[in-house]
Amino acid sequence: MAKKRIYLDYASTTPVDPRVFSAIKPYFSVKFGNPSSIHSFGREAGEAVEKARHQAADFFGCDQSEIIFTSGASESNNLAVKGTTIARISHSSQGKTKPHIITTQFEHSCVLASCKKLEQQGMAEVTYLPVGKDGVVKILDVKKSIKKNTALVSVMYANNEIGTIQPIREIGKIIKKENSERGEKIIFHTDAVQAVNYLDCKIDNLGVDLLTASAHKIYGPKGVGLLAVRKNTPMKRIQDGGGQEFGMRAGTLNVAGIVGFGEALEIAEKERPRNFKIVEKLKGHMVGRILEEIQGVKLNGSKTKRLPGIANFTVRDVEGEGLLLGLDLEGIAVSTGSACSAADLRPSHVLAAIGLSEEESHGSLRVSLGKYTTKQEADIFVDTLKKVVDRLRMIAGK
Amino acid sequence: MAKKRIYLDYASTTPVDPRVFSAIKPYFSVKFGNPSSIHSFGREAGEAVEKARHQAADFFGCDQSEIIFTSGASESNNLAVKGTTIARISHSSQGKTKPHIITTQFEHSCVLASCKKLEQQGMAEVTYLPVGKDGVVKILDVKKSIKKNTALVSVMYANNEIGTIQPIREIGKIIKKENSERGEKIIFHTDAVQAVNYLDCKIDNLGVDLLTASAHKIYGPKGVGLLAVRKNTPMKRIQDGGGQEFGMRAGTLNVAGIVGFGEALEIAEKERPRNFKIVEKLKGHMVGRILEEIQGVKLNGSKTKRLPGIANFTVRDVEGEGLLLGLDLEGIAVSTGSACSAADLRPSHVLAAIGLSEEESHGSLRVSLGKYTTKQEADIFVDTLKKVVDRLRMIAGK
Repeated sequence: MAKKRIYLDYASTTPVDPRVFSAIKPYFSVKFGNPSSIHSFGREAGEAVEKARHQAADFFGCDQSEIIFTSGASESNNLAVKGTTIARISHSSQGKTKPHIITTQFEHSCVLASCKKLEQQGMAEVTYLPVGKDGVVKILDVKKSIKKNTALVSVMYANNEIGTIQPIREIGKIIKKENSERGEKIIFHTDAVQAVNYLDCKIDNLGVDLLTASAHKIYGPKGVGLLAVRKNTPMKRIQDGGGQEFGMRAGTLNVAGIVGFGEALEIAEKERPRNFKIVEKLKGHMVGRILEEIQGVKLNGSKTKRLPGIANFTVRDVEGEGLLLGLDLEGIAVSTGSACSAADLRPSHVLAAIGLSEEESHGSLRVSLGKYTTKQEADIFVDTLKKVVDRLRMIAGK
Repeated sequence: MAKKRIYLDYASTTPVDPRVFSAIKPYFSVKFGNPSSIHSFGREAGEAVEKARHQAADFFGCDQSEIIFTSGASESNNLAVKGTTIARISHSSQGKTKPHIITTQFEHSCVLASCKKLEQQGMAEVTYLPVGKDGVVKILDVKKSIKKNTALVSVMYANNEIGTIQPIREIGKIIKKENSERGEKIIFHTDAVQAVNYLDCKIDNLGVDLLTASAHKIYGPKGVGLLAVRKNTPMKRIQDGGGQEFGMRAGTLNVAGIVGFGEALEIAEKERPRNFKIVEKLKGHMVGRILEEIQGVKLNGSKTKRLPGIANFTVRDVEGEGLLLGLDLEGIAVSTGSACSAADLRPSHVLAAIGLSEEESHGSLRVSLGKYTTKQEADIFVDTLKKVVDRLRMIAGK
C-alpha cells in the first residue's frame, strides 16, 4: 500500500511504544531464564518480573503482593468474577442462598459471559443493571440492587465502545458503607482496561478490591494483563498447577510481556496529563468538524463523562459496516464496536444498553484516538468520512 | 559476571531462537493490529496468526481448526482436563455416575492440580496410576483401570524431570479398541511439552484426541501454548468472553507470541533429526563421564526410553540444593526438578513416584541440554560437578 495508513482504533489495541520494546527485547534470547528457577538465569528473570510488579504496584497504589499477572484482561475478568464467587460458595456454609452478583448490561463480554456461566451452573444469581441513555450507570441503581447475599459488584471504569466513564468512586463509597454493616463483605471489582491511559487508577482512591488492566491497550504487548487484588479479598484461583503469582495463577511467567507491561504503566503514569490534553483536544477538533460538516450524525453517550480517546457516532442512513469498509479502502482503520466481537453481526450490546435501536446501532462507528494520532490524521479522517458517507448515502438513494 | 555462564536447564525454559525473534519483531510496533478487527491492520495480524496456525497444524498433523492457542501449557492442561470433564457432565443425564479420569502420579503439577480440583468439587473421580521404577507407565495398568465411566485418560508424552518417554501410541491403541465398544468415548490427552523438540507428535500417529504444547520449551517465547483438539472432541471452554479460537478460548490473541510459536514449531520439525543426534551424543558423553568419574552417582529412570535432552541423577551423600547452589556459584545453571516448584522444598512427586526415598530425592539433580549446548560446556560442567561434589562431601565428612 503506497498511501500511509491511518490507525484510529486505539481502543481495540495499540502499537507497542518503542521504549517498551527496548525494555522487553533482552528477555527473549539473552535474559531468557524461567523466574521460578533459583539459579542466576532464573534470578535475573525474576528480578525483572519484580521490577515490573513494583511499577504496577506504584501505578495502582498498592503493594507488590497485590498484583497478579495474567495472560490478559479476559483472564483477569474471568478470575475476578468466578474466583470470588467460588470463594464465597466454599466459605459460606452449605444450603445458604447463592451469591448475588451485580454488574451492568454493557460490561465487556468476558465479564458478562463469566456471569452467565455462573448462572447456568447454578452457582450465582446476577443482576444486570441498565445503563442511562448517557452511557453512565446510575449510582442509585447499584444501591437499590444490593441484597443480603450480594457478594460481588463488577462495574467497568470506562466503556470500551462509547468511552463513557462510570462513577466508580461513588459506587465504592456506597459499598464501603454497606460493608460496615455486614459480616460477609461485598467485593467491588472494576474492569479498568480502557481507563488506564487517562484516569486515576489508584485502588484506594477508587475504593475497589479488584481491578483489571491489560498491557496491549496502553502501548504494551498483547498476551499480558493483571488483576490488582486488595489484601484479604477472598478469591480462589481458576488456573491450577504450580504456585506462581502467590498461588493465584499457575503457569510459567511471560517475562518479556510482564516487563513490557511494567514499563508501559510507568510511561502511562508519567505522560498521562500530556496525553490526556493532546488526545482530548484532537478528539474535540475531530468531533466538532464531524458534527458540523456531516449531516445526520449523532455522538453516542455522555458529552462530558467520557474518555478523551473514544468517540462513537451514529450516522443516519448508512451501515457502520459499509462505513468501516469504505474507510478501510482509503487506508483508515476504525471499528463498529469491540474488536472481540467484530465478526459478530448482531447489534452491539453496549449500544442496545444505551437505548439505540437496531438500525441506529448498525449505523454506528467507533473512532478511537491515541497518543500517536496527529491533527493531520484526524483531518484526513474527517475529509474521507465525508466522502464515504456521501457515497454510501448516494448508493442508498438517501 | 566475567566468566561465561553455562545453561543446562533447557527443560525449564529455552532461549528464543534468533530466527524466531526476527519473525516476531514486526508484530509489536509495526504490524500491531488486533486479529479480531476487520480493517487492514487487523487483517495483517490475523493472517500472521493463521500462518502460525498452519505451521502448528502441519507439525501436529491436524487441521488448522484443530489448533487452539492458549497462554501456555498450564492453561492448555487445565482446559484439557477440566473442559472435557465439564463437557461430559453437561452431556450425561443427571444422576449418572461421575466421570472417571485416569492419569499418572508423575504428571506435571498443572494436570495433577486440575484433577485434584475436580475431585474436591465432586465433579470427577480420578485414578492416579503408579509409575515403574524405570519412570515408565505400564500399559497394562492403564488398561486395567478403565471403567464404564472413564471419560479421560491423560498421560504425558515425556516426563519433565527425568525425561522418560511414555508409551503413548500403545495407550492410544488400547483406548481406540475400548472406544469401538462403547457409546460415550474415552478422550485421550497427552501433555507433549517436553517431547515436541525430539519426538514425532502427529496426533494421528499417537492416537490422541488432545495434545498440549508450549512455545518456551522449544526456543519460542514464553506466554503462549496450544491445545490440539481433534474434531468432535467434546470440550467446554474455561475462559469465557469473546468468540476467539473457535469459541474455545476468549481473549485478544497474543499475535507476536503465536507467530513465534509457529516459527519455532517449523524450525523444530526441520531440525529434529539433527538436534536429536547432537544432543543425544552430548548427553551420552556427559552421562558417561559423570558415572565413570564421580562415585556414588545413579541415573534415574529408564536408560533407553528417554529424551535426549534430560538426565536426572541422584548423588549419594549430598543435597541437590547444595549442588545446585555450588554449581550456580560457578556460573552453571541446572535444577533439582521442575522449575514450577523450585521454591517448594518438598521432595519431587516425580522422584517419589519412581520409588526414590526422600533422602535420594533430596540428593537429585536434573541436567537438561539443548541445541545450543556445546561439548566444551558439557565438559566444564562435569569438571565443576566433580569439584562441587567433592567439596560438599568433605563438608559433610563423607
